[in-house]
Amino acid sequence: MTRAQSEALSRMLREGPLDLGGEPAVQRPLLDGLLTAHPLPDDVRTSDGVLSGVPVVEVEHADGAHGTVLFFHGGAYAIGSARGAAGMLAEIVTRTGVRGISVEYRLAPEHPYPAAVHDALAAYRGLLDQGVAPGSIVVAGESAGGGLALALLLAARAAGLPQPAAAFVFSPWADLTLSGSTLGSKAEQDPALSSAALRTRAADYLAGSDPADPLVSPALADLTGLPPLLLQCGSAEILLADALRLAVRAAEADIAVELAVTPHAPHVFQGFPAVVDEAVVALDDAAAFVSRHLHGAARP
Amino acid sequence: MTRAQSEALSRMLREGPLDLGGEPAVQRPLLDGLLTAHPLPDDVRTSDGVLSGVPVVEVEHADGAHGTVLFFHGGAYAIGSARGAAGMLAEIVTRTGVRGISVEYRLAPEHPYPAAVHDALAAYRGLLDQGVAPGSIVVAGESAGGGLALALLLAARAAGLPQPAAAFVFSPWADLTLSGSTLGSKAEQDPALSSAALRTRAADYLAGSDPADPLVSPALADLTGLPPLLLQCGSAEILLADALRLAVRAAEADIAVELAVTPHAPHVFQGFPAVVDEAVVALDDAAAFVSRHLHGAARP
Repeated sequence: MTRAQSEALSRMLREGPLDLGGEPAVQRPLLDGLLTAHPLPDDVRTSDGVLSGVPVVEVEHADGAHGTVLFFHGGAYAIGSARGAAGMLAEIVTRTGVRGISVEYRLAPEHPYPAAVHDALAAYRGLLDQGVAPGSIVVAGESAGGGLALALLLAARAAGLPQPAAAFVFSPWADLTLSGSTLGSKAEQDPALSSAALRTRAADYLAGSDPADPLVSPALADLTGLPPLLLQCGSAEILLADALRLAVRAAEADIAVELAVTPHAPHVFQGFPAVVDEAVVALDDAAAFVSRHLHGAARP
Repeated sequence: MTRAQSEALSRMLREGPLDLGGEPAVQRPLLDGLLTAHPLPDDVRTSDGVLSGVPVVEVEHADGAHGTVLFFHGGAYAIGSARGAAGMLAEIVTRTGVRGISVEYRLAPEHPYPAAVHDALAAYRGLLDQGVAPGSIVVAGESAGGGLALALLLAARAAGLPQPAAAFVFSPWADLTLSGSTLGSKAEQDPALSSAALRTRAADYLAGSDPADPLVSPALADLTGLPPLLLQCGSAEILLADALRLAVRAAEADIAVELAVTPHAPHVFQGFPAVVDEAVVALDDAAAFVSRHLHGAARP
């Protein structure tokens, strides 16, 4: 990322209209508007669907390849939508040819934990019930959706369901106790997130539940039995410590884990491939990870 | 790694003649004998050289490409040799075409810290004095040589020298205070290393120096200003925590860092590409990392 790119993105995030800690009813249309301002690529088509009663948006490529990425959008469990995440998911779909499924899990404060985890597990179980092989599924997500993707793997383990082939997450929010050291050390650098906003959203989502529950905070969980993981994050985000601790927990549990930290990059920088070069590199890497685990593609 | 591969490698390591905590004068010829038992590939040639008074072994490919990997062998600072590391270095040289230089740094107990760091810095400075561009150099190492490679980067920073293009390390020994949590938690799994052996070798190398000195234990250091890092390790090694803490320190210091943990793999499994598949994958990844940073090769 050039200095100019970094400053442009930082300004965009700092001066943008979105307020993550603000009133969800106001922020939801704002975020959806931002995320759907650009049309999807021509060779991608979307359709609405339902998996075990959970609404989803399917994102498919004209030259489809075998496999499914089951994707969970971000927005601190209170904002964001399946349709809003279609653009980011399309970046993976166009690079791999696999089908993307973006899940419309229920949001807080109307639907606190465990509603989101129930919906995630229902969607995954719905795929399996359709006869989709678990080894042909990669679970993925960004921000809160990254934490939810990992919670789904833990919930699937607890339910005795088979694990998917792999999982990748961008800037996962995986500790709702907010105990990560970078909440303080990266606060000045972070142009997108604040502890105060996350505290507000965590309280909405938890509604009294234990923030250290593994299904809420997988960064604090025993990750034994999870499939290969790719964790991507920026070094200019207060949630950096969540990705770092997930890497440590995964390694301790003998999980194949790859961690990639992009210096000076903000939260979910993968959402800005038109602005920063590193977003393109990270999306390329995530797509290669998907292809490797679904199609056995050779390493570089 | 199949179960059969894992068991074969584990048995080889547990039943092998090498005793890392044993008498260096006895262990040195044993390790060199093991490492030089197989001839190098036909398309690679080696030659002896000197860089600023430090002996080196150059490893070159018939189809040479621009760039140099400056490599530091392992052996807990007491055993191993530049020639013994030629085989592992050749795996990178044949994949990338770049020139490999394996450094014959002085060993403990005869030459305790800071002799090895002085030699490492002298060799790097020797390359720069020859007019080699720092951006065409990747520094690398395995085990103690991985720690030494990172110590070199810190020493170069302190000396005001430019940093190389990047660095990769396999299973770095980067904490001679031996405070890593995996020294206990992975002790039963680890077929190659023991805390007792490391304690013996640390005492030899330190000879009274502070084990928390950043040039001895880069896992405890401020890594600000270092170039992009690739850290590879196995999850079945007591030094796992060294790689994990390096990743955390690098990320906190806004360094581009990639960490890859191979589950159930032992210390420096990259040395056994004929025995375990993951060694080939890891060597491929390390070579791709080198090419990306020296030749701007496209990502997968």
